[in-house]
Amino acid sequence: MRTRVVALCGGVGGAKLAYGLSRSLPPEELSIIVNTGDDFEHLGLHISPDIDTVTYTLADAADEAQGWGRADEQWTVMQEIERLGGENWFQLGDRDVALHLLRTQLLRAGNTLTVATAKLAARFGVGHAILPMSNEPVRTVVETDEGELAFQDYFVRRRCEPKTRALRYVGADDARLSPEVTRALDEDNLRGVIVCPSNPYLSIAPILAVADLRVRLRALSAPVLAVSPIVAGLALKGPATKMMSELGAEGGALGVARIYSDFIDALLIDARDAALARECVDADPRLLVGNIVMASRYSRVELARTCLAHLDQLRK
Amino acid sequence: MRTRVVALCGGVGGAKLAYGLSRSLPPEELSIIVNTGDDFEHLGLHISPDIDTVTYTLADAADEAQGWGRADEQWTVMQEIERLGGENWFQLGDRDVALHLLRTQLLRAGNTLTVATAKLAARFGVGHAILPMSNEPVRTVVETDEGELAFQDYFVRRRCEPKTRALRYVGADDARLSPEVTRALDEDNLRGVIVCPSNPYLSIAPILAVADLRVRLRALSAPVLAVSPIVAGLALKGPATKMMSELGAEGGALGVARIYSDFIDALLIDARDAALARECVDADPRLLVGNIVMASRYSRVELARTCLAHLDQLRK
Repeated sequence: MRTRVVALCGGVGGAKLAYGLSRSLPPEELSIIVNTGDDFEHLGLHISPDIDTVTYTLADAADEAQGWGRADEQWTVMQEIERLGGENWFQLGDRDVALHLLRTQLLRAGNTLTVATAKLAARFGVGHAILPMSNEPVRTVVETDEGELAFQDYFVRRRCEPKTRALRYVGADDARLSPEVTRALDEDNLRGVIVCPSNPYLSIAPILAVADLRVRLRALSAPVLAVSPIVAGLALKGPATKMMSELGAEGGALGVARIYSDFIDALLIDARDAALARECVDADPRLLVGNIVMASRYSRVELARTCLAHLDQLRK
Repeated sequence: MRTRVVALCGGVGGAKLAYGLSRSLPPEELSIIVNTGDDFEHLGLHISPDIDTVTYTLADAADEAQGWGRADEQWTVMQEIERLGGENWFQLGDRDVALHLLRTQLLRAGNTLTVATAKLAARFGVGHAILPMSNEPVRTVVETDEGELAFQDYFVRRRCEPKTRALRYVGADDARLSPEVTRALDEDNLRGVIVCPSNPYLSIAPILAVADLRVRLRALSAPVLAVSPIVAGLALKGPATKMMSELGAEGGALGVARIYSDFIDALLIDARDAALARECVDADPRLLVGNIVMASRYSRVELARTCLAHLDQLRK
């Protein structure tokens, strides 16, 4: 019987697990819902950082040493923009620019972001569904001790330095989940939902905020499993731990469990945090232990299979 | 006494004479009015081919071997656009893309094309005024035996192969000359107007069509001198002779004299065409003879000085 797994996914960390899932499930059994709260317009181009990271990663075209952008990237456009006095705080590689030009052209021609994403992903040979959470704009805004910052201002221009006071997902109340996302979640044979190891505030919360997806997940009969983005008290990448501390959340993997507690059935934490699971045997959500650090391509596939096995156990 | 020369200019050939003039006159004594009939939107970018050619040429940044585009150009964006299935009939170099991105951004921010051009030219160290003929869109349309073609469709995609039946400059009736162009032409101490050796139909006619500039030039008290784009019966570059023949115009430099006869005082033709001048001593416009092929940078400056000397003689 054909079943479907739905993954919620942000940028680099999430994309690695999405890669593992894409190597473990055929295209018709996986839908990857991707955060678009980081999307913005820059130099007249529509840029979708998380969608691109997932697309590049699934296509084996990501620059893994750098952690973002394209492998084998060139920088002539950006050098020339700098020379001509243009904005250079957001680095765009030449291949990246090509993709953004085509996406912007597709959107201006009236395609939804979902259709534009599918057309471009197909060009990268990606057969699995990469689904923007919504076709309507949702923009993450970080309220900091230095005032309100648009996501990229906070993340790239200010390198996450200002202290976070709160987050807002502007547009989320009015945005609808895309029909493709709704269809994936409404699937009769939903095997389960996997929340990838992405930043809870910056990558997962914007997805949850669209059209009360969070409430919908709470009511789901299929199991929801999250993978902790925090290992041994530290985020593998990005400002998750800094933000959790600034926002007064409990630290470490337990803090993640708390943030997701209303809609996940279990959190998969790393073997290095096994003590937490031993201390909280009756925790809700349940704490599961495994090797969640994806240092190699093979470990992405291993983690994906571990997640699928857990989903099937949680169903029972 | 400060005087001013106004040059009307299209792409490559015109830009060479504009270069010579810019090396012969200080910035406050030269205004270069450039054709924008070739402008178009491609991949969401506002592209102004003639303005770019003039800017690159004056900045010594043009690719002179190729005859268009930037020196030291790279092609990663275009290769990637091709790989992703985007349109590749109009080749855009990486440095070109940077310029187009910045121009498009400046225009979207509300700058006129004149201001955007000045800002970008300044970044190239160009001090002389490169003035788009109008801030409003004028689009050259070629009526051919295969139907109507937008300029770039005719020129680039179809390589000027279809037979020309007529030309239209869409928008020219409603477009206004820019204030900067009007001011240059209204200058009390106008030394004269030079029509650069550009295609009469594709480069010069669109300029003349804006706000009846042609009528204004007829009424000008200052002299108007054109430099023939045709030498020994052939255009040095582009489809001028082919179009003249298809449109039933007289061939060679005499044909150019005829096309411009209502508003120029004299046409400078090449020494190789000296026989024409000897045969038509009473021609109106007058035929002047000189070395008009600009094979070197030095010959551009020489031709500019020759033109200036002729202008001053025509004044008397």
